[in-house]
Amino acid sequence: MTTATLAARRDKALGSGAPLFYTAPLHIVRGEGVSLYDPDGRRYVDMYNNVPCVGHANPRVVEAMARQQGTLNVHSRYLHEGIVAFAERLAALHGPAIESVIFSCSGTEANEIALRMARFATGKGGIVCTNATYHGNSELVGKLTRLSADTNDGGDVRAIPFPEMFRPLVPGASEADLADACLDRLKATIRRLEDDGVGLAGLIVCSILANEGLPDVPRGFMARAAEMVRAAGGLVIADEVQAGYCRTGRWWGYEAMGFMPDIVVTGKPMGNGLPLAATAASKALVDLFRAKTRYFNTFASSPLQAAVGMAVLDVIEDERLAANVSRVGGVLLAGLKARKSAHPAIGDVRGIGLFLGVEIVKGDAAKTPDPDRAIAIVDDLKERGFLTSNAGAFRNVVKIRPPLVFGQADADAFLDAYDATIAGLDG
Amino acid sequence: MTTATLAARRDKALGSGAPLFYTAPLHIVRGEGVSLYDPDGRRYVDMYNNVPCVGHANPRVVEAMARQQGTLNVHSRYLHEGIVAFAERLAALHGPAIESVIFSCSGTEANEIALRMARFATGKGGIVCTNATYHGNSELVGKLTRLSADTNDGGDVRAIPFPEMFRPLVPGASEADLADACLDRLKATIRRLEDDGVGLAGLIVCSILANEGLPDVPRGFMARAAEMVRAAGGLVIADEVQAGYCRTGRWWGYEAMGFMPDIVVTGKPMGNGLPLAATAASKALVDLFRAKTRYFNTFASSPLQAAVGMAVLDVIEDERLAANVSRVGGVLLAGLKARKSAHPAIGDVRGIGLFLGVEIVKGDAAKTPDPDRAIAIVDDLKERGFLTSNAGAFRNVVKIRPPLVFGQADADAFLDAYDATIAGLDG
Repeated sequence: MTTATLAARRDKALGSGAPLFYTAPLHIVRGEGVSLYDPDGRRYVDMYNNVPCVGHANPRVVEAMARQQGTLNVHSRYLHEGIVAFAERLAALHGPAIESVIFSCSGTEANEIALRMARFATGKGGIVCTNATYHGNSELVGKLTRLSADTNDGGDVRAIPFPEMFRPLVPGASEADLADACLDRLKATIRRLEDDGVGLAGLIVCSILANEGLPDVPRGFMARAAEMVRAAGGLVIADEVQAGYCRTGRWWGYEAMGFMPDIVVTGKPMGNGLPLAATAASKALVDLFRAKTRYFNTFASSPLQAAVGMAVLDVIEDERLAANVSRVGGVLLAGLKARKSAHPAIGDVRGIGLFLGVEIVKGDAAKTPDPDRAIAIVDDLKERGFLTSNAGAFRNVVKIRPPLVFGQADADAFLDAYDATIAGLDG
Repeated sequence: MTTATLAARRDKALGSGAPLFYTAPLHIVRGEGVSLYDPDGRRYVDMYNNVPCVGHANPRVVEAMARQQGTLNVHSRYLHEGIVAFAERLAALHGPAIESVIFSCSGTEANEIALRMARFATGKGGIVCTNATYHGNSELVGKLTRLSADTNDGGDVRAIPFPEMFRPLVPGASEADLADACLDRLKATIRRLEDDGVGLAGLIVCSILANEGLPDVPRGFMARAAEMVRAAGGLVIADEVQAGYCRTGRWWGYEAMGFMPDIVVTGKPMGNGLPLAATAASKALVDLFRAKTRYFNTFASSPLQAAVGMAVLDVIEDERLAANVSRVGGVLLAGLKARKSAHPAIGDVRGIGLFLGVEIVKGDAAKTPDPDRAIAIVDDLKERGFLTSNAGAFRNVVKIRPPLVFGQADADAFLDAYDATIAGLDG
């Protein structure tokens, strides 16, 4: 089947507008480790996917999945040790303040639970998020998608400008002044929620601001923001769907960013492709949510989720993937930073662990975002066998996020391809 | 580990109030076909679960799952033939009006899509559902949970009394008059939505009113209700999460009930335990939803969902399970009806295919619901090795819904246990 024929069938069967990557979409039939293969056997290095975090077709995950599905996979209203042990292990990865877990099937579902939990616990409605963010696709969670900052519309979801160093809120300000300025906006938003009678339920933030484009954040902002939210009676929700599971070289993005949330949401990498997500918090918060909702999720907390989730944790620990992420990610970041001056379109290079971003600009003093060129770079890297995508507030950040098993040789090969792509850019 | 120890660990790890079946919860470690086993090897016949519809640990599903997870399981922004072929096959099971499919990970997510699709398509907000229903656990879908009928609160979700013969809206009315009376309530609700400026987006209904307790519905109601909704500019959403996939002996509950929806939601049985759900409609409706939302679901439309979903369809077709459901379900219903006079607590016996309900009452002329006795019956059947649950508007209906592979010998054994349970009831 030709790619065009398949695309036409897809357009009918899934509806027009089901998103596809790349100007010329890629047909993928097989994966192994960091590699994906098209029908002709051409290999692409996956530098985008954090779902198959321990590698495509990881044999230990496949084995755990098959064994459990062949033994028992049923809903959670019977006792089963697997899901209890998995919840205990997951909670323990956060430290003593996080005690209990509600499993679900997607980051959207897990974020819904977190937002509603914060509202139940505080008795208030107001959710603060960052602008240019995305936390999921339900009606409630979708309200947080790419909101304008500092809106004053009386609604119960408000955005603050995301903190960043590259396009600072106060041009020319010191890092400390910038942190203060960003915190002032948070304070003003909280005050407006209170003045409007909505009140503050909580702040939700991707711990590493992934959708915003992985900005360098003014030092101290995150911890002080969390403190401010708690002082105002709200809860802090860390969305670790992208930031967690050793993506940064530490288990959690909030550790890398130096703050402690009240509620932690995890998703994408938990099941290496099996739908699996979780909302973790103190037992008191989880008990309250369960009492208010009698929450039940048909497919979640299943023996299958438990077995696969455990296998992923086993691989991450046994193969010391956190250390691999720090080591290879560090080399990759250094390599990209060394190439920052290779072309005026490279406005910024940043990130942490194996989640890096290259911000593409027009090369002017205003740092005008250049999403078209970012897309051209992503397309060119794809032609050279390396799969990335573009993201960020202006869709102009080349998003580099390979599986946790990405090795040094893969990084070297990518940097060679990157050199060629950059060299091919016109002025 | 004792059951009490495991329950205590579970209470901590998952939070108090995570639902459990039975007064003395059951610890299950293994499943095969219609059987579930506790740690001591005691066998229970599963007469509750429609998720593992082709049987626990079905080897063809296990094999398909393992093979695909070992080959490729990645998000849907690459072309992949599997998910396209699965969507085509699923749509074709509905006939020509249903053309395109949006996959998701839970019935909740699929119902969210359906409700929002109806609102986008009509430009109106009003959703009509039945009272005593349940369609999922998100904030939006959760608004439909067990609403009071005929509320007039200006809100955008309103319930009508579910149509039924056992506790008729108009006592003593003929079946035809009862259908008219129920339709009048629907008409009045639509008018109130219009008068309030909300307008009608659509009607959502479980095709067989499962959560309401599987009532016998006045003949013609469903088709005429669908007609009335369309005439008022709304769309008809059939929630086939429980009713679909040959549960009634036909592919879809709406066929058994004689109406045709505009949007069909499927979930539970689709993946035999893999999180998998779908919202299917005309291409125009799906295109519109995608255009409005740019909907993307990380774990959905994956090669894994496709391969497992296909395997389930293969088993249902190859093993002619629809015919099995009609045959065994018919015998089971006849057996239960023949025992209706065995005890005054048995108020009604009803259902279709392998989804039956026995309504338990006080035995008085008023047919007072007796949920406590329903629970006692469910507990006693469990002790005899048969797993059911209680459901319905008053939680007093013994819900009997074994996997589609449930056989004649299983039905005979159940009826023997049922006889003993009923004989053990005091007056």
